[in-house]
Order: sequence, then C-alpha cells, then structure tokens
Amino acid sequence: MPRPRTPLLTVDVIIELSDRPEHPIVLIRRRNPPPGWALPGGFVDEGESTEAAAMREAKEETGLATKLVALLGCYSDPDRDPRGYTASAVYVAHAAGIPRGADDAAEARAFAPPDFPQPLAFDHGRILNDYLTFRRTGQPAPLRAPEQS
Amino acid sequence: MPRPRTPLLTVDVIIELSDRPEHPIVLIRRRNPPPGWALPGGFVDEGESTEAAAMREAKEETGLATKLVALLGCYSDPDRDPRGYTASAVYVAHAAGIPRGADDAAEARAFAPPDFPQPLAFDHGRILNDYLTFRRTGQPAPLRAPEQS
Repeated sequence: MPRPRTPLLTVDVIIELSDRPEHPIVLIRRRNPPPGWALPGGFVDEGESTEAAAMREAKEETGLATKLVALLGCYSDPDRDPRGYTASAVYVAHAAGIPRGADDAAEARAFAPPDFPQPLAFDHGRILNDYLTFRRTGQPAPLRAPEQS
Repeated sequence: MPRPRTPLLTVDVIIELSDRPEHPIVLIRRRNPPPGWALPGGFVDEGESTEAAAMREAKEETGLATKLVALLGCYSDPDRDPRGYTASAVYVAHAAGIPRGADDAAEARAFAPPDFPQPLAFDHGRILNDYLTFRRTGQPAPLRAPEQS
C-alpha cells in the first residue's frame, strides 16, 4: 500500500505557570515565519507519542519541564496553517520556573489571561479563546464538525 | 523546508446507537489485515478536518449518519498500529438506525458495553476501556505522558 498523505501531526502546549499567583501562561515570539506570538509546539516525530512530543517541544522552546494535565482539543481546520495541512493536539500543562525562549522561539514570556499579545499566529487566537472557557469551566474545546460549526 | 515525517493521522469513532435502550456501540469486523473487530475509522485526508473525517469514515463503514458529541482522546502510542506510526483522534458520536458494514468493514454490529467481541484490533481494547470510564463519568481518556503512564 502506498503511504497515504494525511495532515502533518503537530502538538501545541498551553503552559500554566502554577507557581505564580495568577497562573499566567507562556507564549513564544516566533523566530521563523509566520511572525507573531504563538503557543510552544511543533511536529510530532515518528516513534513519539503526542504527549512526549508536547513535553519535548515545551522544553526545547521555553526551557520548562511540564506536567500535562489535559487535552484541550484536536485542531484540524484545513486553513489553520498557511504552510500546509497540519492538525494539532493541544495540551494544557503545568510548569514552574522562568521561561527562556530557545530553538524556534526568539523569546518566551508569561501572560496573565485574558491579556494576550498580538498578533497571534495560526489559529492560536481561537485555541486561546477555547482555553479561557476551559480555564473557567473545565470544558474541552468544542467540536467543529461540518454541520456543528 | 523538506516535508517532515510525522505519524500518519487517523480517526476512530465510538458510535452510540442512542435510539436503542442500552445505547449499544457499533463495531466492525475488519475486511483487511490485521483481523478482528475494531472501531470504524481510517486515515484523515489532506484538506479535511478530523471531525469531518470521523463522520465520513463512520458513514462509509457503517452507513450511519453521526453527530459527534466528544473527543475521547488522542491515541499515539508508537506501537499501537503494526502497519506503521499512526496517531488517532477518537470521537464519541450518536447515531440512530441499523448499521450495515461496507467499505473496509465486512460486518458492522451493535454491542452493549461492556460485552465487546474478541479479538479487538490495534489498541481498540484500551480505547474501549477508556470509553467505559467516559460513559460512566464523562471523563476523557487519561493522558499517557512518559512519566505519567
């Protein structure tokens, strides 16, 4: 069987700094196009689970060791990434310490919700909106089926 | 940039027949290797969301029109599929009517939890165990991070 073509699999992580009073979250300023602020994240490697990839990318881009606490959702709108078809498993995680941007991140900084910087790359504005609901209610991201959107 | 290699993206659907008293779920008997019973599902196409893929695969393999109600989890253990690296977004859905196996399904049949047939292909036994918890409590699948497994 020829290898099927599917959307490329990525992960993104909403890191809550649980050692600070307001539990701010960590965003990175992207070093590469498209410009803007974004959640730490990246491609899942073959032979790696999405959970392992999320923790690896969080570490590479912010220096933080994370404990994953929830799957917020699976984001797969075909238009979400201008570079091509990607689908992202987005996790919420806890961490402590000082984020330091590295790798694909020119900078990593903590922001207390709902005060997020602009512009946000990809569909990360939508993801952060869903996260605000999750943070308030514990509800995961809404499903976006064709007739349910 | 060369196209990265990531796990191939699939979806699986736990279809609850909500018009029957016990809300049984639909499993298919696989037409192709590996043999056994499985959740309806398959590869996500480029240009298709995971939600749309889940509804398409459910329709193709069982004939049922589904309404997605929850994302159970993202299953991405590198050993979950003997054919290669795949990660699956697994949805819970509602449907009504009589399932009829087609396409990759030699047969589609309803089973009242927890009485599932054997053998179950891939990691679908684990998924169904997680689903039993979801059905009882509303909790999504546990995360399986390296140090949290």
